[in-house]
Amino acid sequence: MTERNIRVQPTNRLAVEDQEVEIVERKGIGHPDSICDGVAESVARALAQTYLDRVGKPLHYNTDETQLVAGTAAPAFGGGEMLEPIYLLIVGRATKEYEGTKIPAETIALDAAREYINEELPRLDVGKDIVVDVKLGEGSGDLRDVFGEDGAVPMANDTSFGVGHAPLTETEEIVYNTERKLNTEYAEDNPEVGPDIKVMGKRENDHIDVTVAVAMIDEHIPDMLAYQDAVDGVREYVSDLATEYTDRSVDVHVNTADDFEEGAIYLTTTGTSAEQGDDGSVGRGNRANGLITPNRPMSMEATSGKNAINHIGKIYNLLSTDIAETVGEEVDGIRELQIRLLSQIGRPIDQPHVADADLVTEEGVSVSDIADDVEDVIDRELADVTSITERAINGELSTF
Amino acid sequence: MTERNIRVQPTNRLAVEDQEVEIVERKGIGHPDSICDGVAESVARALAQTYLDRVGKPLHYNTDETQLVAGTAAPAFGGGEMLEPIYLLIVGRATKEYEGTKIPAETIALDAAREYINEELPRLDVGKDIVVDVKLGEGSGDLRDVFGEDGAVPMANDTSFGVGHAPLTETEEIVYNTERKLNTEYAEDNPEVGPDIKVMGKRENDHIDVTVAVAMIDEHIPDMLAYQDAVDGVREYVSDLATEYTDRSVDVHVNTADDFEEGAIYLTTTGTSAEQGDDGSVGRGNRANGLITPNRPMSMEATSGKNAINHIGKIYNLLSTDIAETVGEEVDGIRELQIRLLSQIGRPIDQPHVADADLVTEEGVSVSDIADDVEDVIDRELADVTSITERAINGELSTF
Amino acid sequence: MTERNIRVQPTNRLAVEDQEVEIVERKGIGHPDSICDGVAESVARALAQTYLDRVGKPLHYNTDETQLVAGTAAPAFGGGEMLEPIYLLIVGRATKEYEGTKIPAETIALDAAREYINEELPRLDVGKDIVVDVKLGEGSGDLRDVFGEDGAVPMANDTSFGVGHAPLTETEEIVYNTERKLNTEYAEDNPEVGPDIKVMGKRENDHIDVTVAVAMIDEHIPDMLAYQDAVDGVREYVSDLATEYTDRSVDVHVNTADDFEEGAIYLTTTGTSAEQGDDGSVGRGNRANGLITPNRPMSMEATSGKNAINHIGKIYNLLSTDIAETVGEEVDGIRELQIRLLSQIGRPIDQPHVADADLVTEEGVSVSDIADDVEDVIDRELADVTSITERAINGELSTF
Amino acid sequence: MTERNIRVQPTNRLAVEDQEVEIVERKGIGHPDSICDGVAESVARALAQTYLDRVGKPLHYNTDETQLVAGTAAPAFGGGEMLEPIYLLIVGRATKEYEGTKIPAETIALDAAREYINEELPRLDVGKDIVVDVKLGEGSGDLRDVFGEDGAVPMANDTSFGVGHAPLTETEEIVYNTERKLNTEYAEDNPEVGPDIKVMGKRENDHIDVTVAVAMIDEHIPDMLAYQDAVDGVREYVSDLATEYTDRSVDVHVNTADDFEEGAIYLTTTGTSAEQGDDGSVGRGNRANGLITPNRPMSMEATSGKNAINHIGKIYNLLSTDIAETVGEEVDGIRELQIRLLSQIGRPIDQPHVADADLVTEEGVSVSDIADDVEDVIDRELADVTSITERAINGELSTF
Repeated sequence: MTERNIRVQPTNRLAVEDQEVEIVERKGIGHPDSICDGVAESVARALAQTYLDRVGKPLHYNTDETQLVAGTAAPAFGGGEMLEPIYLLIVGRATKEYEGTKIPAETIALDAAREYINEELPRLDVGKDIVVDVKLGEGSGDLRDVFGEDGAVPMANDTSFGVGHAPLTETEEIVYNTERKLNTEYAEDNPEVGPDIKVMGKRENDHIDVTVAVAMIDEHIPDMLAYQDAVDGVREYVSDLATEYTDRSVDVHVNTADDFEEGAIYLTTTGTSAEQGDDGSVGRGNRANGLITPNRPMSMEATSGKNAINHIGKIYNLLSTDIAETVGEEVDGIRELQIRLLSQIGRPIDQPHVADADLVTEEGVSVSDIADDVEDVIDRELADVTSITERAINGELSTF
Repeated sequence: MTERNIRVQPTNRLAVEDQEVEIVERKGIGHPDSICDGVAESVARALAQTYLDRVGKPLHYNTDETQLVAGTAAPAFGGGEMLEPIYLLIVGRATKEYEGTKIPAETIALDAAREYINEELPRLDVGKDIVVDVKLGEGSGDLRDVFGEDGAVPMANDTSFGVGHAPLTETEEIVYNTERKLNTEYAEDNPEVGPDIKVMGKRENDHIDVTVAVAMIDEHIPDMLAYQDAVDGVREYVSDLATEYTDRSVDVHVNTADDFEEGAIYLTTTGTSAEQGDDGSVGRGNRANGLITPNRPMSMEATSGKNAINHIGKIYNLLSTDIAETVGEEVDGIRELQIRLLSQIGRPIDQPHVADADLVTEEGVSVSDIADDVEDVIDRELADVTSITERAINGELSTF
Repeated sequence: MTERNIRVQPTNRLAVEDQEVEIVERKGIGHPDSICDGVAESVARALAQTYLDRVGKPLHYNTDETQLVAGTAAPAFGGGEMLEPIYLLIVGRATKEYEGTKIPAETIALDAAREYINEELPRLDVGKDIVVDVKLGEGSGDLRDVFGEDGAVPMANDTSFGVGHAPLTETEEIVYNTERKLNTEYAEDNPEVGPDIKVMGKRENDHIDVTVAVAMIDEHIPDMLAYQDAVDGVREYVSDLATEYTDRSVDVHVNTADDFEEGAIYLTTTGTSAEQGDDGSVGRGNRANGLITPNRPMSMEATSGKNAINHIGKIYNLLSTDIAETVGEEVDGIRELQIRLLSQIGRPIDQPHVADADLVTEEGVSVSDIADDVEDVIDRELADVTSITERAINGELSTF
Repeated sequence: MTERNIRVQPTNRLAVEDQEVEIVERKGIGHPDSICDGVAESVARALAQTYLDRVGKPLHYNTDETQLVAGTAAPAFGGGEMLEPIYLLIVGRATKEYEGTKIPAETIALDAAREYINEELPRLDVGKDIVVDVKLGEGSGDLRDVFGEDGAVPMANDTSFGVGHAPLTETEEIVYNTERKLNTEYAEDNPEVGPDIKVMGKRENDHIDVTVAVAMIDEHIPDMLAYQDAVDGVREYVSDLATEYTDRSVDVHVNTADDFEEGAIYLTTTGTSAEQGDDGSVGRGNRANGLITPNRPMSMEATSGKNAINHIGKIYNLLSTDIAETVGEEVDGIRELQIRLLSQIGRPIDQPHVADADLVTEEGVSVSDIADDVEDVIDRELADVTSITERAINGELSTF
């Protein structure tokens, strides 16, 4: 144990990969909850950057409460339209004045949200298909002074908890990459695939079921045959993709709620179910590592939109994930690793109350063989905790 | 008197030009009330056009209730910024479904509003400086069926009243053209002049005071000296312009509320006072002829945003103004003319209950000399009443 | 002419009572526009009172922009219900802090609005049938300092105009009292009569048509027969009432848009058309004397909700109406009187630029006989202008 | 294993009570997130009840997206006030018409929310201190038909997961009961204690720290001394209470963020931090068992506001918690029990894909001794799954 109270120990659980049943979920970038996460985080980054640019230091903000109210749409083969707009309300707290300098927090928030939506949901015409509104109040008085002196490591503002895991299990890899690759590589050549892609993986022993719900974009789907082709295309692509990550048997199911006889298919105009009936909000979807993993301990904390300077829940979730990944890359012999950071309110955030690493080692490797290496990485990353803030503000760390 | 119940008669009033005191006002295109009028009318036109395009006939709508909530701005020499956005709520009624055809009334409204603002208030970045929201409900049941058979002249939906005048008095000409030319010809060469220009004319006997309030745009005003130059420029321009319309003595006052010592000047970032503290709504500003004229009878009716097919208040205000102008152009010998149209609920709108023309003739001309000519114009225009609808929908008639 | 620049002169118009056609309208207390007027004025009064109570002097406010978005209702014989609430947005400007004292402007506004609605529209359950929301911003900086020293007469903040008339014509009396008495005396015994009563009077020479639209309350209307009885009852009551004010022939029409065959009748659950399809806003209905009178000059100014301390448009509209009524009561021999007050920006409001009285005298009376008496009243009322402020804040003056 | 695919097995984890570090949190009834949970669930219950009453069967709804935007308050010793209201937006989906029957979903929602707030947060004056607004859209078409035939067990609408635990650990008991008893028994005699009570428990081996943040109500706190007494009172009460649940050493910390020198204390006017700066939303706080327990697997599902008829995430979270508690009561010899239910999309919800029970038995008891008893309870409760729906609609099951 170092000064930083780091503990490296064998786990008392069964490795997730060895558990009988494993469930993994990922809500894609265009899912209503993810839209909220993405907007909230974009707004947070823009505010943080503005504070640094204008007053040379971070000021209090938290914009982790965006709410999306679904619209109404009339999708149609070949191209439909939205009837009633999605309503997106950016909610949170921001400092609007500091020693005489006014900070245009609300217009910055609107601008950041618009830019984000334009980038990630290009079929949503901001101002027509989606109304973006904003209510940013001032924070409570006693929170505005929590930010420490320049350069100093901030103090933890709460007793909070972050948890990270590495490496991903096969099912996790499949679920994560199914969404990521469908939404990038595949969508590039297949414009009918919208960004609202929800992936559910369920492994029972050595069989994996991957269920994918893809919001198909009507403009690129001339008829039912084309729709079926689109569904088949996704199924084949994901089936191939899965073999990169596992030797287990994999079944892929795409848009299983479709009822061709009823004509009830997953056709959208904008590529997101937010256009019709699916509301969303921040912190209800993916955890900081991009997944929902009921087989693993998770933090309830909404990471997106929180301030990245001293919000300990956000920082420790990002940091524990980062530590887990780094240990996974740098230290050999690990089958499964869990990093948990527990803050101590009022103490510098580089000195957690506890930082513990639970390990499942590969056969032939004992925890004691590698404990020092693991501890070194943890110690190094904790010492460099403020770089998490910097990378979060720069958008280098994903929060959902 | 014709079948249409047209009466042409000498007035029982003193011509406005002969009254001792005359007051005239115009709220420019960028005034918060005018923004609401303009948006409401744009939305109405877009809806009307959509109904014609999609179902081949007009359906019920009224979008005459837009509300603007002012924002907060921090103007500064050389360029400031908005801190909190303007909030614009489009309110009204629209038919959203007709015999199975869905009409995207709300997204059309948003689109029309955005296009209008982009065109007329180019410095307002829609979605950042101004949030445009929409609440369009369905109308009450019994109103949805008022529209008559194709081609038929609609029935009046109310007992209502329209009034028009011609020609404009000298003071009216000056007030109207001051705003119009500042906002077009002058602004082209003088980008510091914003669209929120309020003009008040007050004539006492043979002296006219013209008071102009111009929202100066900070990006083009580097310092106080430049501001004063801008004010001087407007004053000179308007002084020259006034001589085109009158031989009376004219004093021009620009931005009289400025207090240079306090630094309290009319500087804005976006060219409208809606950016800071001035709310607005429909029907509170200019009448259908573009002016507020307490010396003349006026209709309280909000013309902007009303449906142009059977809303009798809108149609009769536009039509009476049009008739007055046409008579003024076509019939010689008229010093002052007032056209008043009174509807009869349930009768075709080309058959008003009363259409009366009050005339002040030029010296040497008697009303009886020209009554037939006047009546002919009125009769012709009433017979062609549906062209008012068409021109209103096409945006050829101004409503404020 | 006194120091106050008061002019008393014979009119150059025909008395309204002598004109061939006269139109008069009153929107009752429960009409959507009147609801907005009433809420706006209640909020204004509550704010003014709070400023006086807490800091001992008035502070800047203007709450003249309330917007009502209609709801959806399902009225039914014997009692229906509202399906979707009315949305009422209180908009305006208010000072929220003065020398360290915080003023809870928004919660005061909500409270005042609720109290007003509970009082005047008791069937609207605030919080269920109607959502009341509020957006009160701070005013623009240069307006916050306009209020003068304690006790001093404030300076006019604008070039503005107020106009008042007396006595009411017969048609005006009938229209005004029809609504007032239906909504009080008659409603007490006939609970089926809702507060949304719109009255239109049209006089042609010696015949008067009174058209009344009454929102009947479904709970007290068990069936169609009862509805017809209710309509008949109103017709008889108004017919009788009219004879108190005129010897002319009068026809009364009630709920003329009803179509019994279609079952399209004016039945409501809450007693206002705001429950279904009729939006409203401030300043779109009655002028300060409670009427819309196209035969008389009117001010476009929205009187309701404006601050009563230095908003010259509000004060001069209230004052000119008050002067006209007082002259009418105190000076004999007047058939028709119009008082017009024109402000001079920057001068004390008790010294208008012009105060003129246009008179039509009774036969045998000349203007010169009574000019001094009229001038005395005007002078006295102007000297006492600040009592208008006081009475407005105390709710003793109606603004719509 | 039965037909229902129930598995009872020894756990592969360390009992939480035996882990070195344990963290537990509960957000009290007045916490902004809990307000949202409570309102969302109240609205859901009211809608469900209405559907049953009016059409005899459940219709589609999901109201799990309430958003709270904090207000602004000026608390003061002896009694302060709110300056700007809290804004609460009820978001979700509801069926508004079924075979010609209109359902007043929005007014029902507003009514239910108001009733809930009046009951649980009596110091919040609904309509003045908090504006409750509502946006309930229709669901997407294909969801409206998911509800099965009358009486039939519904089909699972998703692949989802519920998890329940029993019995509570000592730390869990302390955290849960601290909030519950402070908010009931203690608050009855100590009206200064507001409903926004957040409790964090942290156990390290045999020492427990309980950190309580209580929103004190200013009306009952005349001065700083009284505040300190109030804090001391809570500390003593909780210290005593803790001894009922544990023999471990316990330290209690109350309102640790207070800074008496700065005068920064946790004083509120309404008893909730929502009055100033703390926003909230559904599903971000307590899990279905009322706790946040990072040491245990948790579901990310927002249970509050979901429909209780076929939303499998809600039902399985409530059911697994209920099963765990029932097993805990009925079967002896269990130290720790985890019930996990995994749905199979498209299969009746009483036949989960997997229902597994992980057990840690007491010394001397083996899993095989009691497996049958455990399985019996699980089987019985699954067979009776629809009673969960009923109890949820009746408000007998807590969701947060």
